[in-house]
Amino acid sequence: MEATDPTLSSTVPMAHAPTVERVRELLGDAGFGVLTEIDLQATLLAKLGVDVPAQVILGACRPELAYRALESSPWIATLLPCNVVITQVDAQHSRVEVFDIALLVRIAPDAEVMAVAAETRARLLGMMDALSVEAGERHAVGA
Amino acid sequence: MEATDPTLSSTVPMAHAPTVERVRELLGDAGFGVLTEIDLQATLLAKLGVDVPAQVILGACRPELAYRALESSPWIATLLPCNVVITQVDAQHSRVEVFDIALLVRIAPDAEVMAVAAETRARLLGMMDALSVEAGERHAVGA
Repeated sequence: MEATDPTLSSTVPMAHAPTVERVRELLGDAGFGVLTEIDLQATLLAKLGVDVPAQVILGACRPELAYRALESSPWIATLLPCNVVITQVDAQHSRVEVFDIALLVRIAPDAEVMAVAAETRARLLGMMDALSVEAGERHAVGA
Repeated sequence: MEATDPTLSSTVPMAHAPTVERVRELLGDAGFGVLTEIDLQATLLAKLGVDVPAQVILGACRPELAYRALESSPWIATLLPCNVVITQVDAQHSRVEVFDIALLVRIAPDAEVMAVAAETRARLLGMMDALSVEAGERHAVGA
């Protein structure tokens, strides 16, 4: 992770397509459904004719956490679902990245939202740690 | 808009379903494609058995702006696309809400990201203004 990026990220020694599939499975293990999927590479090629590395955005949602946050602060719908971005680094490495929702404290320091954000963040970090461990990396997750 | 919400929102005198369709069309007029659509009401009912008012999240993307931001700051992918949330207030009123991306300055005060955010914000506000005007409201958009 670059120090200035407001994200949590991990680079793993896996090709892009299997990383996307494994992240999808690990999100399921962590209780997240994948509600949306955007192929950003295909979108930018189709709309602008530009060629970027393979990049997929999975929109993950753990309904219990989403509902708890929505009950407290309905505006949180504007930040749902949690994006998990998987980007090709090279043929054998992929980067997995999520927005660090702990930074929401700078925008809306609401106690209940921050409690939900902390649990969501921990679950997403756990998913990324699990991926790194099984891919053979030890401390690849920047926090 | 409630003063403490980090969003821009507008309540219009239109039922939910036609508001969703009109927002989709106005987003197209403003150069945004709708990449994702989440029926939050259906999702929460299916997953948790809870009944909330009709609520749809449209994921809007203007490829030129997304690409410009990505070239400058690849992490912005974690915040794509821009969500436009349409919520049923009552049978004849709907609320349209977006996260106020001007607040990104509190998280990542990068000049290019903020320039793209300003243009995106202006286009989304223009879409919400157009909706309010044609629905017969004058100053429904809180900023």
